[in-house]
Amino acid sequence: MKEFVVAILGATGAVGREMMKVLEERNFPVSKLIPLASARSAGMKIPFKGGEVEVQAITEESFKGVDIVLGASPNKVAQQYADAIVKAGCVFIDNSSAFRMDPNVPLVVPEINPEDAYKHNGIISNPNCSTIITLVAINAINKLSEIVTVVASTYQATSGAGANGPKELAQEVKDIEAGNPVHPETFQYQIAYNLIPHIGSFLDNGYTTEEMKMQNEGRKIMHLPNLKVNCTCVRVPVFRSHSISVTLVTKEHLTIDAVKSAIANEKGCRLVDDPANKVYPMPLDTSDQDLVWVGRIREDLINPNGITLFCCGDQVRKGAATNAIQIAELFVK
Amino acid sequence: MKEFVVAILGATGAVGREMMKVLEERNFPVSKLIPLASARSAGMKIPFKGGEVEVQAITEESFKGVDIVLGASPNKVAQQYADAIVKAGCVFIDNSSAFRMDPNVPLVVPEINPEDAYKHNGIISNPNCSTIITLVAINAINKLSEIVTVVASTYQATSGAGANGPKELAQEVKDIEAGNPVHPETFQYQIAYNLIPHIGSFLDNGYTTEEMKMQNEGRKIMHLPNLKVNCTCVRVPVFRSHSISVTLVTKEHLTIDAVKSAIANEKGCRLVDDPANKVYPMPLDTSDQDLVWVGRIREDLINPNGITLFCCGDQVRKGAATNAIQIAELFVK
Repeated sequence: MKEFVVAILGATGAVGREMMKVLEERNFPVSKLIPLASARSAGMKIPFKGGEVEVQAITEESFKGVDIVLGASPNKVAQQYADAIVKAGCVFIDNSSAFRMDPNVPLVVPEINPEDAYKHNGIISNPNCSTIITLVAINAINKLSEIVTVVASTYQATSGAGANGPKELAQEVKDIEAGNPVHPETFQYQIAYNLIPHIGSFLDNGYTTEEMKMQNEGRKIMHLPNLKVNCTCVRVPVFRSHSISVTLVTKEHLTIDAVKSAIANEKGCRLVDDPANKVYPMPLDTSDQDLVWVGRIREDLINPNGITLFCCGDQVRKGAATNAIQIAELFVK
Repeated sequence: MKEFVVAILGATGAVGREMMKVLEERNFPVSKLIPLASARSAGMKIPFKGGEVEVQAITEESFKGVDIVLGASPNKVAQQYADAIVKAGCVFIDNSSAFRMDPNVPLVVPEINPEDAYKHNGIISNPNCSTIITLVAINAINKLSEIVTVVASTYQATSGAGANGPKELAQEVKDIEAGNPVHPETFQYQIAYNLIPHIGSFLDNGYTTEEMKMQNEGRKIMHLPNLKVNCTCVRVPVFRSHSISVTLVTKEHLTIDAVKSAIANEKGCRLVDDPANKVYPMPLDTSDQDLVWVGRIREDLINPNGITLFCCGDQVRKGAATNAIQIAELFVK
């Protein structure tokens, strides 16, 4: 089997580190792993496959001889090095939002639109975390009957803000316990014991950039150019998994049994729906694994073609690192 | 001014205690306050208006000479004593859900349907907490144009489960910090750093009793028998205020400016909506006060007559104690 030289752009962040863990776990055929980060992290050693790899400072020359670059950096860094990566002949699987809506860049969830990945021109974008989790949860329904509208309210974990998010939540809990004031830096306000209905930047239409991703990226990934999505994104004091309350409408009426059965058989999903026995998805249960858990599936009380559900998934894994490596795996086969 | 003999049924719980605080704060004309509770709490002293009142064990005889009984007890206790209360000639303002849907019992939010209170036959019900907060937030919109549908996802504080809810959250945080296992009793599972999409009991249609209250009670309070509400209730690790993400559709198209202006002028509401300056409702800010804060108001991206918003309110106060005392105040005037 062919082996690949893999570089990770932004290897020292939460997603970059998880990418290394997932590469190892899934036994991705890596001949050489090159962790790249800013100059200040150069020389840092990161454990990988029983040994250690040394972080290198990113330069335009970093990508020679590399097959796959996994991007786990902010937009600015992705934009700065994209040309060098593509010119070096690598496939750049980028977790930033910089290129997601570029018509020349496929935006891929392997369970949904793997075929798009092969049309790349050097860059493949990894979608937004809440979008990935929501779309994996509803993809089986879309196969039964086209989804027309989605109303989504998110419950997003602190991990979505990078490694500093969960740290800030933990520190605030300690500060409050000690009777000390809290010092929000990563989030706009105290997140411990609070909710913040503000993720991303506000646009003229009153939605945030994060909220619009669900519609914009959803349309592109599902090949549903007319899909309408109304999303409200809320940060919650949870460490790692994102949850989404979804009410969607399909073109035709579907029975709840058909929907449950389709979700149970859908790749990437786990049907967790036995309310009588207190079985439903919860973020605490979905951390550190790759499936999107789907439950609380029931008929909408408004639209006869509507379905309501609640889903949870690990934001760092399926919402970021695992999805990127699943894209890379499309090129192994 | 007439003064009233007021008894509190269930005076030692979170809502009962808050009722005493609110009676005092609002300077309700109380000639005598009688805190009633189970025999095991009898003799307990509770501070009131600079002095102390002694808890009495509830009996069928407790209500003689009482004008107003404020109910802060579970359904069973409310049902057990309702007849005795009504026979004694009291007005029973009951926070339990026992009588809310009884056609002979008004269900009242004073900002919305005060006129219903005067049609009572001895019992007036205080609505569900999330329902009160949501309805106060959207009532101004309903006055501009009739609301046809509501999709609501709640973010409900631990206080909704009574005094033991916030205690369990605080204890779990301590246990986790100390590396000890948690022992959920009040909630189905660990609530610290988690979400539980299960409040109330599950019905045959897959919704919980709590979720159906928003439609059933909403119809009765707003006099909208055809209102359709799709609600998902989720417990969140917040101590006290409930938050609700709402997408509603009205009969006619409304401009966002008209909606904001109506909410700003609505009794019981506070418009908190300046996203550019990070101004939006958050549960931490709305605790220990009586207004429902409304923000993130924007056009729905699905329905041209749709509005989306986020609201927060103190569950123990406006969601329970304050609303009950506001009902009592209707009889003072």
